[in-house]
Amino acid sequence: MSSLESRNITIKIFVTGGTFDKEYNEHRGELFFKDTHVPEMLKLGRCKLEVDVSTLMMVDSLEMSDADRRNILESCKRTKEDRILITHGTDTMVETAELLANSIEDKTIVLTGAMIPYKFGSSDGLFNLGSSLAFVQTLPHGVYVSMNGKCFRWDKVRKNKETGEFEETRHCAHNPS
Amino acid sequence: MSSLESRNITIKIFVTGGTFDKEYNEHRGELFFKDTHVPEMLKLGRCKLEVDVSTLMMVDSLEMSDADRRNILESCKRTKEDRILITHGTDTMVETAELLANSIEDKTIVLTGAMIPYKFGSSDGLFNLGSSLAFVQTLPHGVYVSMNGKCFRWDKVRKNKETGEFEETRHCAHNPS
Amino acid sequence: MSSLESRNITIKIFVTGGTFDKEYNEHRGELFFKDTHVPEMLKLGRCKLEVDVSTLMMVDSLEMSDADRRNILESCKRTKEDRILITHGTDTMVETAELLANSIEDKTIVLTGAMIPYKFGSSDGLFNLGSSLAFVQTLPHGVYVSMNGKCFRWDKVRKNKETGEFEETRHCAHNPS
Amino acid sequence: MSSLESRNITIKIFVTGGTFDKEYNEHRGELFFKDTHVPEMLKLGRCKLEVDVSTLMMVDSLEMSDADRRNILESCKRTKEDRILITHGTDTMVETAELLANSIEDKTIVLTGAMIPYKFGSSDGLFNLGSSLAFVQTLPHGVYVSMNGKCFRWDKVRKNKETGEFEETRHCAHNPS
Repeated sequence: MSSLESRNITIKIFVTGGTFDKEYNEHRGELFFKDTHVPEMLKLGRCKLEVDVSTLMMVDSLEMSDADRRNILESCKRTKEDRILITHGTDTMVETAELLANSIEDKTIVLTGAMIPYKFGSSDGLFNLGSSLAFVQTLPHGVYVSMNGKCFRWDKVRKNKETGEFEETRHCAHNPS
Repeated sequence: MSSLESRNITIKIFVTGGTFDKEYNEHRGELFFKDTHVPEMLKLGRCKLEVDVSTLMMVDSLEMSDADRRNILESCKRTKEDRILITHGTDTMVETAELLANSIEDKTIVLTGAMIPYKFGSSDGLFNLGSSLAFVQTLPHGVYVSMNGKCFRWDKVRKNKETGEFEETRHCAHNPS
Repeated sequence: MSSLESRNITIKIFVTGGTFDKEYNEHRGELFFKDTHVPEMLKLGRCKLEVDVSTLMMVDSLEMSDADRRNILESCKRTKEDRILITHGTDTMVETAELLANSIEDKTIVLTGAMIPYKFGSSDGLFNLGSSLAFVQTLPHGVYVSMNGKCFRWDKVRKNKETGEFEETRHCAHNPS
Repeated sequence: MSSLESRNITIKIFVTGGTFDKEYNEHRGELFFKDTHVPEMLKLGRCKLEVDVSTLMMVDSLEMSDADRRNILESCKRTKEDRILITHGTDTMVETAELLANSIEDKTIVLTGAMIPYKFGSSDGLFNLGSSLAFVQTLPHGVYVSMNGKCFRWDKVRKNKETGEFEETRHCAHNPS
């Protein structure tokens, strides 16, 4: 049951961008990144957990470089907290999860994102943030992807390019053990 | 890790009303209950879990009768699902949790609510729904109260009347064993 | 065509409360008044008009006293602007309009309100504010009620208690001239 | 005072797209057009005016062709209503207004738009729709641009490319008479 037993843990949140944080530039009519909305979302959810939010980057996950991913990996390793939530674009979320899982074994890391930007009225972001913060408190060490109320082990999930949904993979391609 | 291992469980959701579902009557300028917003919220969160929603009542928890509570208890006993989420007004949520815990040992039951009605722009409801659906999947059998990102065992929580917040009770008044 | 010809007029806005400005008290589960949302609404509408907002009172119009109405009347008389918008509860809006019309002839005064509080997602307030600011710029001197895209002379309107809608009165009961 | 005197006029609304109606495609992460939101916005504003909405096209005004503009012109000429509201992208709104003004003298035509799509929480669209419906009821025949609470004659306005705001032009470049 993990962290429910000790109330005073801190959850580390690393922000990397993704749809979650996209905004609308009213002069150019384009989507862009400015600041993360995670603190505002935590406030809206009246979240009473101890969290520590750091923005690592603000990028679309299709444009995330190898250096960006190494930055995420090193940040997860370095941080003293062993419960980590990462907000991330959905397109390459599984790729980043795999990189983390190959190097980190003693932490619970949950990656989450959104299909619709938080600033748009109809975002799924607040729901995903809520469920991800619960998963990161309760799951054993490992790397997970949390979307749409579900949580998948990193090696048992893929994003279905046609439906846009995350779905379980039956056999485990990444980790055949 | 519970339900993460078997993807196809169904979560039972019992709706009892509470702030979650309050609406504004524009003719009389009052708050009232009509239908539950839980299905709409699940859709907004793009929830992909198997859920089965039943409305037991639509009441303010300060007006919940003993008969109402027995109805909730019997419904939780009768339903075949062993993972149950109950939406409930916050004022007497702990009281209902205690009644359930005294009779049900083989199910995971999570009670949740909201401080602000879902229909009002600034509701915490979607966040609480997301985290509660995660807690109900991952926690062992028992009765819990989930609010503001935190989840408490029924016998270790109280609503602070002054701050309106749920907080851990240090010693366990209800269940001194 | 009135004010369209001289860009630099200032519109006086008097806030008196009403549904427009009701908020939800999350501790007591009740509706209440705190501060007006009119400046926030003007910002959301990216309003570029010169406006000067003064809060006269924050009351439900069913609880508006004779002294409150005299305060509104005196404030309208005293202000140097001749284009005035008043936000007001809908229940007694026509009553206040009549009082103003009996004493003020050389100003354009538009009363408006909302059926749903602005802070609730589904408010009609922003629409009413937009149309009222247009009516107050373009209509000749007189006292008007603006709701739901329509604008009525004060002596040709009543609130239909059953439907909650403002409707034109065919003959003019108040002002039989 | 125009249409305030005869309650039963119908206002024609022609939809042409623009930021007003942009939506977010959650699979491709792009903005796109689907259906107009004008009827939904009128419902939110509880608009009680007689309106007749026709969608002529759904385009970004930077991509509006000459044929599109002729379509708008012919539609305005043909429609029997003499009070017409056109929703339009802001970038070339003035250009379309000029085309209409050169051919139509016996109707009141108001063009409006939005800086932020309606589907995003923070849109100015509802405010602009409200004020434009008021202007179209009250202004004499002519072609106008209504944005941000202001209404400009078509030949006295330009969009400031740097600020994104509509502003009055001092001398009248288009129509030097």
